[in-house]
Amino acid sequence: MAGELKSVELCLEKHIPPQDLAEVKRILYGGETRKLSLPAAALSSALERDFELQGYGFDAAPEQLRRPRIVRVGLVQNKIPLPTDTAVAVQVAALHRRIEEIVEVAAMCGVNIICFQEAWTMPFAFCTREKLPWTEFAESAEDGLTTKFCQELAKKYNMVVVSPILERDEVHGGTLWNTAVVISNSGAILGKSRKNHIPRVGDFNESTYYMEGNTGHPVFQTQFGTIAVNICYGRHHPLNWLMYSLNGAEIIFNPSATIGTLSESLWPIEARNAAIANHCFTCPINRVGTEYYKNAFTSGDGGKAHHDLGHFYGSSYVAAPDGSRTPGLSRTQDGLLVVEMDLNLCRQVSDKWNFKMTGRYEMYADELTEAVQPCFTPNIIRE
Amino acid sequence: MAGELKSVELCLEKHIPPQDLAEVKRILYGGETRKLSLPAAALSSALERDFELQGYGFDAAPEQLRRPRIVRVGLVQNKIPLPTDTAVAVQVAALHRRIEEIVEVAAMCGVNIICFQEAWTMPFAFCTREKLPWTEFAESAEDGLTTKFCQELAKKYNMVVVSPILERDEVHGGTLWNTAVVISNSGAILGKSRKNHIPRVGDFNESTYYMEGNTGHPVFQTQFGTIAVNICYGRHHPLNWLMYSLNGAEIIFNPSATIGTLSESLWPIEARNAAIANHCFTCPINRVGTEYYKNAFTSGDGGKAHHDLGHFYGSSYVAAPDGSRTPGLSRTQDGLLVVEMDLNLCRQVSDKWNFKMTGRYEMYADELTEAVQPCFTPNIIRE
Repeated sequence: MAGELKSVELCLEKHIPPQDLAEVKRILYGGETRKLSLPAAALSSALERDFELQGYGFDAAPEQLRRPRIVRVGLVQNKIPLPTDTAVAVQVAALHRRIEEIVEVAAMCGVNIICFQEAWTMPFAFCTREKLPWTEFAESAEDGLTTKFCQELAKKYNMVVVSPILERDEVHGGTLWNTAVVISNSGAILGKSRKNHIPRVGDFNESTYYMEGNTGHPVFQTQFGTIAVNICYGRHHPLNWLMYSLNGAEIIFNPSATIGTLSESLWPIEARNAAIANHCFTCPINRVGTEYYKNAFTSGDGGKAHHDLGHFYGSSYVAAPDGSRTPGLSRTQDGLLVVEMDLNLCRQVSDKWNFKMTGRYEMYADELTEAVQPCFTPNIIRE
Repeated sequence: MAGELKSVELCLEKHIPPQDLAEVKRILYGGETRKLSLPAAALSSALERDFELQGYGFDAAPEQLRRPRIVRVGLVQNKIPLPTDTAVAVQVAALHRRIEEIVEVAAMCGVNIICFQEAWTMPFAFCTREKLPWTEFAESAEDGLTTKFCQELAKKYNMVVVSPILERDEVHGGTLWNTAVVISNSGAILGKSRKNHIPRVGDFNESTYYMEGNTGHPVFQTQFGTIAVNICYGRHHPLNWLMYSLNGAEIIFNPSATIGTLSESLWPIEARNAAIANHCFTCPINRVGTEYYKNAFTSGDGGKAHHDLGHFYGSSYVAAPDGSRTPGLSRTQDGLLVVEMDLNLCRQVSDKWNFKMTGRYEMYADELTEAVQPCFTPNIIRE
């Protein structure tokens, strides 16, 4: 998108003098993240296929009884390759092809677990409030074309695949859900995790299409680490992150679709806060670009009818339990972020800061139980 | 402190070219905060008394049925004025004098509610693990010298005063607590709020001195707005902020004492995340400077015994419910931050984003209640 800043981090690199830059990075980002050296073939493939490829690493201290648990995670952000009025099946096929060529590069980079953006097989069309053709993008989590496609990728590359789709649940009256399907590196479907919190903000009219998830806070024990998926708007709810963490998640993915005018100043804060508060890695992913629709729609803000939701600003990043983070991917371009992490860091930071031990969850369980009663009286002290 | 960066925000202002600066500020800070015009007499008094004085304002949209609810809040950060081996009573008196001259300037700026830093009447001596003379700084919350001093200030300036002290609770066996005393602008003691979460990290040996608070999450309905106090390490616990908010807090103060090497990259994240997640204003305050002790102590990190806890980096700021924030006060100098806010913004942002409505607190009350059981089985899915 012309005129869009590529990324804040690149802008700081360019303009802050070296004597201050390290200190600014320490305060803003927790320091300089180690750069990964990625294979030349991967870098040239990414260039050829027109997506950004970045790699960073987080280290942990050596321990006596546990070996390092090094895992490489891949975050994919992408534009939709075809106009939104192209035939549904053609759009899906094009997205499959695009993801396939990015995953191939991820495999060259040794990625063990990969996660795509929210509702990755479709344009983010919920702004339109039209049902057809958008609900036709919904698929079965168990035997839809996209799940089969991801199972092939998982087997081929020995990679855990997190595939967030619009789910059609035929077993329950054809209900729609916003669901991440988690596929083991063996190719087996490990399970699914549904979006727990649905936005009612701006043109994010998703509550028109699907309901709050009923899968709770499952975590998936994979060969490479224990992972969970907090989809999009769940990012704003600290309790959502907490429950995944209490169930044992070491890496929490946050596949999202969000736009600049609404949330961009919240983006660097929320997932990073969750990594800090829960002693885990968090991986927020956002789509890129602007998607246009044939029929104009208004936004409940007195403005004119228009054809797009706004600019999806990418900026996918990984936050570590020690409060540091990687730079974000571009605000304007497709990208793959490869992040190596030693999962031992989670427990090391937990033992240092002790938030789980000092969390007083019994007190909060009681207070929350009271707070949700219709007859709840807030604890207000008056003169 | 020589060599310390004064503030990241000033550094960005100085080096980022104008065509990028607005965009960088929008993404990093939610935009440019309106500067308050403060009285010349206040500015010259601050200069004379050697502290920084900054003023910012947050606005809300006009409503039909509610008038704007404009309040001015003051955040005070300061060094200890005397060496830590000065007689206790002399140190306390010097701190009273220092605060008095800052509060006088706050009054000139029309401040309605003022909050001091954590344990403001003493050096932050818990790093030493010595009991005497430090426990002698503890005072009764109800009739200690410091509370009386604050009551006088409150009456004189028609100002709500939040006074975080080390509390000696004679009624309960002489227990020590880390307590914020909240004094109405009438001069009456409204009540107190005790620190709910106690650190066990680095040299923050506070669990050696006092216990987790037993006052829950009270909020104080003052003439100028409903406020709460989340003391220091409670900042790391999202549930602590949430419960103050569920009880109705519109402004949550976070009087703190924390050092650069430990927490500085967390500082811009946590309180700001709480403002976003809870649709309220948050006001983190940190002390400034380095405090030296006569007896050297070690830090459990293999390093040599030393005489200080580290550099308290100030950087007090206010975060708004819309995700924006003020620049921080200096990292190195005493300061008063005056922030005008229209409290109507809280409900306006809440109605826009709806985190309370979409929070699904019933589900979390149930899940937390389960999670704290000794026999809890995490929700782990395996292949």
